[in-house]
Amino acid sequence: MPTYQLPSRVILQEEGPREGFQSEGLIPVEEKLRLIHGLAETGLEVINCVSFVDVRRVPQMADAEEVAARIRRRDGVRYTGIWLNAKGFERALASGLDLLPNVFTSVSNTFARNNNGRSATDLLQVQSGLIERYKSAGMRVAAAHIFTAFGCPYEGIVSPDRCLDAVNALMTTCAEHGEIPDVVYLCDTVGAANPLSVRQTVDLVRNRWPTTEFALHLHDTRGMGLSNVLAGLQSGVYRFDTSVAGLGGCPFAGNKSAAGNVCTEDVALMCEEMGISTGLDLDRLSEVARMAEEIVGHSLPGKFMKAGRIPSAATNRTA
Amino acid sequence: MPTYQLPSRVILQEEGPREGFQSEGLIPVEEKLRLIHGLAETGLEVINCVSFVDVRRVPQMADAEEVAARIRRRDGVRYTGIWLNAKGFERALASGLDLLPNVFTSVSNTFARNNNGRSATDLLQVQSGLIERYKSAGMRVAAAHIFTAFGCPYEGIVSPDRCLDAVNALMTTCAEHGEIPDVVYLCDTVGAANPLSVRQTVDLVRNRWPTTEFALHLHDTRGMGLSNVLAGLQSGVYRFDTSVAGLGGCPFAGNKSAAGNVCTEDVALMCEEMGISTGLDLDRLSEVARMAEEIVGHSLPGKFMKAGRIPSAATNRTA
Repeated sequence: MPTYQLPSRVILQEEGPREGFQSEGLIPVEEKLRLIHGLAETGLEVINCVSFVDVRRVPQMADAEEVAARIRRRDGVRYTGIWLNAKGFERALASGLDLLPNVFTSVSNTFARNNNGRSATDLLQVQSGLIERYKSAGMRVAAAHIFTAFGCPYEGIVSPDRCLDAVNALMTTCAEHGEIPDVVYLCDTVGAANPLSVRQTVDLVRNRWPTTEFALHLHDTRGMGLSNVLAGLQSGVYRFDTSVAGLGGCPFAGNKSAAGNVCTEDVALMCEEMGISTGLDLDRLSEVARMAEEIVGHSLPGKFMKAGRIPSAATNRTA
Repeated sequence: MPTYQLPSRVILQEEGPREGFQSEGLIPVEEKLRLIHGLAETGLEVINCVSFVDVRRVPQMADAEEVAARIRRRDGVRYTGIWLNAKGFERALASGLDLLPNVFTSVSNTFARNNNGRSATDLLQVQSGLIERYKSAGMRVAAAHIFTAFGCPYEGIVSPDRCLDAVNALMTTCAEHGEIPDVVYLCDTVGAANPLSVRQTVDLVRNRWPTTEFALHLHDTRGMGLSNVLAGLQSGVYRFDTSVAGLGGCPFAGNKSAAGNVCTEDVALMCEEMGISTGLDLDRLSEVARMAEEIVGHSLPGKFMKAGRIPSAATNRTA
């Protein structure tokens, strides 16, 4: 039988409380904490808890400081948050969360203007300022994020070459400050990737930067989320942003941009069944996924929490 | 850049009106016909319209003859139905549908007893009788179906070797009557497959029967439907049973067995974006998917009909 190259271990980083809740209505702080504390019991190593962004644009994150302050920490879990500019970083720094200093750019210039109010070139200058601030705070650049790495509604499908150019621009900006990010996240911000574009793009950038880790941030907008995870695994990716229950994706929203990250427990199930270790407790994750549905008050896209397990033949085989 | 082996063309066979409606309440004949006629305008080559099965067990198919009789035929489309025993075959024969004489067995003996009221061994004897009847009607065996090819809730995950044994038993039964099926469908009857088990199983049976076509009938019970399609494509499969809008899968049913086939237009989108020709009109398929939601009166799992297209860079790229 042929062998199928897949990593032996995968790291799923939880986005539910941050990106997921950002797509919902206003959730009480207690409920946010309930989800975060539940997630911390499942074996997750990284939980992205809040965004330190403009409260006028994202009122769901107005309580970021309070959530951060009230998290009951569990050993072995990194509780992180995100920010998009220097002001956000200062708030994150003051919050006491486990910061992962990051830089970012967008392949799509139109998306950058609409989402971040700046051209992609201007975004790189913002990153220069952020890197200097990180250094003055005694921190290194841990991660780089490439938004719209596979496409966006404004500029359409992004070719692997265009994505590589954006990675290169951001890597160059880092290098000008003597920095090399540990991990580069290719972010399928709106869910434009397909399995072939994932493989082509990941293989291209990994070939160009063989000592850099590439991770994937995927959305299930068009149903290809898990297929894109599979394609990523086949190209050697072992770190993915995921969201419990597929939080952030509301099947009734009618809001095309509302599709969530790939679902944590569904990705975990696929990995475990293919022999890829996740370090996660799937049954506990299912419980937390149902808790997420309870908190947001509607059904969420995750499937494993509804379908349950197929028993392994070893434990439940009859004659 | 490396090449990624994928077929150049794929054939999606529509299961919505048959398997999909079978999982719903009673749908009026006119509505069933509306869906079938809509599907016939999308480029689909095969539409499975009805089941000729025990009306007491499947009341949704009590109108099979009427539906079959009232279909407004379109050239180039095969309108098929299924049956599970000789009595069903006589009804199918009388219906005037485009029959694809088939034989079947189940890897899981427990599933065969629960679903078909017979052991897997007894099922093979039923197939012998069916084959003789096909021959007396001047027909050949066109297709073979292997139920629970990847697992079932009773006996758990099925190993590739067990699946191969079941294929072998059915092929042997056919051979005893001088028949070789054109296509063998590996049916993930309850959605127990994962991408690795798909690849391992398909590669194993294709290696054993290199001149036989193997097709996949997949359910999206646990969210791995499209990943399993991808795995099938990577192993050379180019024929899949699919269901418009993912019909048959109701996210609110709470019925674990209610998950539908992989969604026709979502599979088609993934294929087309990877350069695999489907011959299908995706926009029309989306319209028919929305029609399916209207007919059943609730939301269905298909994603493309909600998310729409990402424009190709060629037609919509800005500076």
